[in-house]
Amino acid sequence: SSPSPSAGPTELPPDKASIFADLSADELRAVRTFLMSRPELGLSPSRGGPLAKNTLFLVELLPPKKRLALRYLDHSGRRPRRQARAVVFFGGQAEPNITEFAVGPLPRPSSYRPLRFKGSRTVPFTARPMTQLEYELLYGVLAQAMQPLHRLLLDATGFWFHNCSQRCLTFSDIAPRGLVSGERRSWLVLQRFVEGFFLHPVGLEVLVDHRDTDPRRWAVQQLWYNGRYFSSPQELAECYERGTLAVARLPEPPSQQLFSSYEPRGHFTTGTPTRVHGAKVCEPQGRRYRVRGNQLEYGGWSLAFRLRSSAGLQLFNLRFNGERVAYEVSVQEAIAFYGGHTPAAMQTKYMDAGWGMGAVTYELARGIDCPEVATYLDVHHFYDADGPVRFPRAICIFELPTGVPLRRHFDSDFQGGFHFYAGLEGQALVLRTTSTVYNYDYIWDFLLYPNGVMEAKVHATGFIHATFYTPQGRRYGSRVHSHVLGNLHTHLVHYKVDLDIAGTGNSFETMDVRFENISNPWSPGARVVQPWLHRQPRHSERQAAFLFGTALPRYLLFYNPRRRNRWGHARSYRIQHSSHAGPVLPRGWREEEGVSWGRYHLAVTRHHENEPTSSSIYAQNDPWEPLVSFEGFIRNNESIDDQDLVAWVTVGFLHIPHAEDIPNTATPGNAVGFFLRPFNFFDEDPSVASHSPVIVRPLDPPTFSRAEIQRWTPASPGPCVDPEPFTYNGTYRQE
Amino acid sequence: SSPSPSAGPTELPPDKASIFADLSADELRAVRTFLMSRPELGLSPSRGGPLAKNTLFLVELLPPKKRLALRYLDHSGRRPRRQARAVVFFGGQAEPNITEFAVGPLPRPSSYRPLRFKGSRTVPFTARPMTQLEYELLYGVLAQAMQPLHRLLLDATGFWFHNCSQRCLTFSDIAPRGLVSGERRSWLVLQRFVEGFFLHPVGLEVLVDHRDTDPRRWAVQQLWYNGRYFSSPQELAECYERGTLAVARLPEPPSQQLFSSYEPRGHFTTGTPTRVHGAKVCEPQGRRYRVRGNQLEYGGWSLAFRLRSSAGLQLFNLRFNGERVAYEVSVQEAIAFYGGHTPAAMQTKYMDAGWGMGAVTYELARGIDCPEVATYLDVHHFYDADGPVRFPRAICIFELPTGVPLRRHFDSDFQGGFHFYAGLEGQALVLRTTSTVYNYDYIWDFLLYPNGVMEAKVHATGFIHATFYTPQGRRYGSRVHSHVLGNLHTHLVHYKVDLDIAGTGNSFETMDVRFENISNPWSPGARVVQPWLHRQPRHSERQAAFLFGTALPRYLLFYNPRRRNRWGHARSYRIQHSSHAGPVLPRGWREEEGVSWGRYHLAVTRHHENEPTSSSIYAQNDPWEPLVSFEGFIRNNESIDDQDLVAWVTVGFLHIPHAEDIPNTATPGNAVGFFLRPFNFFDEDPSVASHSPVIVRPLDPPTFSRAEIQRWTPASPGPCVDPEPFTYNGTYRQE
Ligand SMILES: [Ca+2]
Ligand SMILES: [Ca+2]
Ligand SMILES: [Ca+2]
Ligand SMILES: [Ca+2]
Ligand SMILES: [Cu+2]
Ligand SMILES: [Cu+2]
Repeated sequence: SSPSPSAGPTELPPDKASIFADLSADELRAVRTFLMSRPELGLSPSRGGPLAKNTLFLVELLPPKKRLALRYLDHSGRRPRRQARAVVFFGGQAEPNITEFAVGPLPRPSSYRPLRFKGSRTVPFTARPMTQLEYELLYGVLAQAMQPLHRLLLDATGFWFHNCSQRCLTFSDIAPRGLVSGERRSWLVLQRFVEGFFLHPVGLEVLVDHRDTDPRRWAVQQLWYNGRYFSSPQELAECYERGTLAVARLPEPPSQQLFSSYEPRGHFTTGTPTRVHGAKVCEPQGRRYRVRGNQLEYGGWSLAFRLRSSAGLQLFNLRFNGERVAYEVSVQEAIAFYGGHTPAAMQTKYMDAGWGMGAVTYELARGIDCPEVATYLDVHHFYDADGPVRFPRAICIFELPTGVPLRRHFDSDFQGGFHFYAGLEGQALVLRTTSTVYNYDYIWDFLLYPNGVMEAKVHATGFIHATFYTPQGRRYGSRVHSHVLGNLHTHLVHYKVDLDIAGTGNSFETMDVRFENISNPWSPGARVVQPWLHRQPRHSERQAAFLFGTALPRYLLFYNPRRRNRWGHARSYRIQHSSHAGPVLPRGWREEEGVSWGRYHLAVTRHHENEPTSSSIYAQNDPWEPLVSFEGFIRNNESIDDQDLVAWVTVGFLHIPHAEDIPNTATPGNAVGFFLRPFNFFDEDPSVASHSPVIVRPLDPPTFSRAEIQRWTPASPGPCVDPEPFTYNGTYRQE
Repeated sequence: SSPSPSAGPTELPPDKASIFADLSADELRAVRTFLMSRPELGLSPSRGGPLAKNTLFLVELLPPKKRLALRYLDHSGRRPRRQARAVVFFGGQAEPNITEFAVGPLPRPSSYRPLRFKGSRTVPFTARPMTQLEYELLYGVLAQAMQPLHRLLLDATGFWFHNCSQRCLTFSDIAPRGLVSGERRSWLVLQRFVEGFFLHPVGLEVLVDHRDTDPRRWAVQQLWYNGRYFSSPQELAECYERGTLAVARLPEPPSQQLFSSYEPRGHFTTGTPTRVHGAKVCEPQGRRYRVRGNQLEYGGWSLAFRLRSSAGLQLFNLRFNGERVAYEVSVQEAIAFYGGHTPAAMQTKYMDAGWGMGAVTYELARGIDCPEVATYLDVHHFYDADGPVRFPRAICIFELPTGVPLRRHFDSDFQGGFHFYAGLEGQALVLRTTSTVYNYDYIWDFLLYPNGVMEAKVHATGFIHATFYTPQGRRYGSRVHSHVLGNLHTHLVHYKVDLDIAGTGNSFETMDVRFENISNPWSPGARVVQPWLHRQPRHSERQAAFLFGTALPRYLLFYNPRRRNRWGHARSYRIQHSSHAGPVLPRGWREEEGVSWGRYHLAVTRHHENEPTSSSIYAQNDPWEPLVSFEGFIRNNESIDDQDLVAWVTVGFLHIPHAEDIPNTATPGNAVGFFLRPFNFFDEDPSVASHSPVIVRPLDPPTFSRAEIQRWTPASPGPCVDPEPFTYNGTYRQE
């Protein structure tokens, strides 16, 4: 993907940040053209045609090696060569496989070489993500297989598959697709295709084996209908015809105010206004941030950003007042593991990087998804396509008034007056994108505060993954409508945080309090019990891996053992979790091996060029023998003293759906994330450089008839104007 | 206290809410006049004069008994009599004590009766909060006692006590004031009186016994200077004169850019604008909330609020769409327990209700403490005064654009277009006050979301409680300036949440996941391991008390066992913590008995009229034998099945100060609180009643050349205007 301003000319990104910039549409095209021209690859277009062919599935930036990037950024080294990562599906050969290539140099590629995963494993063909083509074939096979059930479906739902312009059935597929590596058979949940179809399961789930590259060999293996299993559509149809089937007859969906829609219904008894606009964000005196290409600057912060088609936002070279705090901060994976009584529900273990989590970054609505005054950027993805696809307004950037001062103090004189009042208004810069992974919408935020604090945060919204309600389902969630069960699940999100605290040589320690019982120095015989600072240096990767279920020490500190602040403390940054995460499965149980990062609140590893990510787009369809095994990063238990360290942060929450998740999960209370906070990194709060404080001092105590207002910004913020009406386009097109 | 709009006429509060309204200035005066006229009380004015006298310390609303209030609110019962709570210091008698009285009926009181604490204990005189008068006397005794140290102080600090118009010393007192019940001796931390004097300890701490009601019997008992103890000022002075003292000579504080001030210094290397105003909150189409007297309404929510002079914000009769969710939600206490090497630091265990936490609600700055467009309300406190004191703009109310949609979904067609986009903008109503308890500023928020979610949140800012730096201090915190140690401490805040879920008869259960290992119903021989919903009904108070150090189940559910939502689930509300709290002391250790609520993340008790609060204004100065012992609420281990339940919620965090706490602790990352979230309380998300959603549907797929935008608010939000410049007054005066 490649960010470019939504409207107006594209400024060239500043030199240094641009080494991390996503590939432009031209670069993406150049990579495709080059690879398509290589006869030995035998590539065909992705769309249409058979599955048994070789196709170019994904093209994105292959970031430079850190060593080369740092040499360029910090030591006037030469600019790293710009390269692409290209994922090729070799489906058109006797032993199909997936191979990833490095392609370069850009913008005019002339060579390619295979990229090896750690352990030199090749990617099994069955581990590949789904494509539009495979879905079309799957739909055809399913519709065909459902023919014997036409009468049952029509009677029970009023909807069907064939010639159904208005009253169609559709399906959601779940994953993983089988029970062991090498399988590719998916449970499909049939739904009525109305607005919010995720909440309209009809009670039929179908297991289709679609492993073969020849769809003629695909077949329905099992069915589940309203609590019973059937081995074939015919068996189910016969049961229905015999009258021995418990049929779940669904009422006709209303044409207005369908429960799964956003159409207003009911009213607030308070009678307070709802037909006018509520409070908004405005910028009375313009923008206080700067976006140049993929470089963002705000109140001391500067960083480079990109939007990986594979897994989402990735920040590089995060600096405050010119000093690097982190080399990389990025989203790695988002998963949701479910429980349920239907086969689809009990099988569902979503790993969203395998669903193109970074590529499903659809248009942000102005004034709803981000404030009207935000900056919106388009991106390009090359993912399951035959060229770069422009996703308009996929990223937004805005300054948020947090509504709470960054800091303030009232200094009372306790006589009805004061010595001074001082306050610094609270704002943060937000960098945002969303991932709509079918039903769910993740809102991905990075917030920059002008006091050196950075916050990563993800909100969950959109439709819950729901299944057909049967009474046995109550063990696994809440009934949220007549025929709908909201299944319980655990959300986990994984971040890579390659902190470089005043350099790459860092150490890690934890702090929390202990209590001591000492003799009271001013009262003989008495005892003092008080807290003291218990520091635990962590010398190895195992010592720095914090399993769920054990208490996380409250201070997790990364520091440079050779750099001290003015007061003699090791310059440090702290990671502070905001999370209610827990394990998704017992350790080591089958699919859990594919998400072994999901064992730890935090794990600290030594940086290695061949451990760039904790997950991959292949985890979803082969979690059993994962291409990237995070546990392998810490198994060698390296020393982490004065090394280039990477923090891997897991956050999440347990979601037991409830009636209020209808029509959609709401964001309040459904956000998790973490803070990066300076801890003796600076000599004082670096927000003292802001000119936004206001200091008030009384001029004539004790009468206080006048006050001096000291400030460094205009007395009046002036009007905020944004009269432009809402518009939305919603499309994303190949260019 | 009594809220009244800051500008413009006071509307009368709606009838029902007004039974919870704070006392008006007239009512406060009437109570005082009545009590002053009772010869048997022998009351004198509070200000001036001796300590050995009887005074009226505090007057505030005595809320009606719940039973009577509910009868009035729900069953057309008669309006409860309006009464005051009056705290009288009986210092002018042989056996001094404190007595609390109920005084009524208002507005014309004619009688009073003593209010008994549970267990009928009387309040020892030494348990009373400090008064302005006692501080004046203490200052006098201290200044007098420091005379032998005049030369040392002048040499070491350049500041002194006598005739010091510009270069004065001041002090902070810490608490508790002794080691056992009945003592009243305080460690005083001497500081240079400059802007931000809390960060300017001079290295001298003085223990003064001020127990006697005759200040002539007060005396310095010990001193600590720069690491050494002395038994008298003379001993310290002699040591200095002999030249055997390690003197900490402090540099002259600069007249500009003092490190403890808010004056800007340095610059952001990004060069992004800081001399203009940043993003603001605006209201393009007016207010969407309604404040009438002490009643607040917004998006389905209605509640009554007051600001207790003793402990802060208290909400009553919290309803959504007319149904009660909670009878009361209120702040009970805020504490901070420290560790350190100086005697003051190791002794500090602040319990802020004893410092008038609810009364130190100074003026909120427009545009900094709350948005420019907020509604500001004045309040009246009668606390250590001879009449009602008006605190202008002590409360603010505003609608906050949260910057993130309340919910949203993009429904892709995976072909470059979409089925629909829908989103509902995110806003919340904020009700806010602050407590400036000497150095610290708490920002107290209640947020109302239009989807039935309520959030309680407190931010900590202001100055840290710092002591003089010595190398031994590093065990207890960070050196944050040449001579300043930031001492580690744990903040805990306690809330009372009297949920009444669809009535007062409620039960409580917890939910979390367990894993089951079952045979795979669609693959013979295979196993399925998956999560299921583990419910634990909690039948007694002990079963519902969740100690720190044990994992808190992730769903804490209060429900009405006799009311179900449309889908058959018990109507419930959930409490969700946002906290990093831990114990302040080992269980049962001395002062810990005074904050026994601080053992539990959550405790659920049966409601009792004689257990109205978990703490008191007396806990600070007698934590050893507390007047209110929270542990006593649960010791009888009552059944909590289908009872009127009260949830007691503790949140907090460990604060290890660091250089970035200078000049003030910043709010990002320093907020804790909890959510109240509906859980099958409604049949669907009640925010569907909002008219703010936008739905976009393409009109002509697959070209998507046009889209239909369906909305129920104007197409354009219009301009936001607020050109008024910043003003601030800062005073709070007796009326
Ligand atoms: Ca390793
Ligand atoms: Ca690093
Ligand atoms: Ca009890
Ligand atoms: Ca209750
Ligand atoms: Cu969820
Ligand atoms: Cu603190």
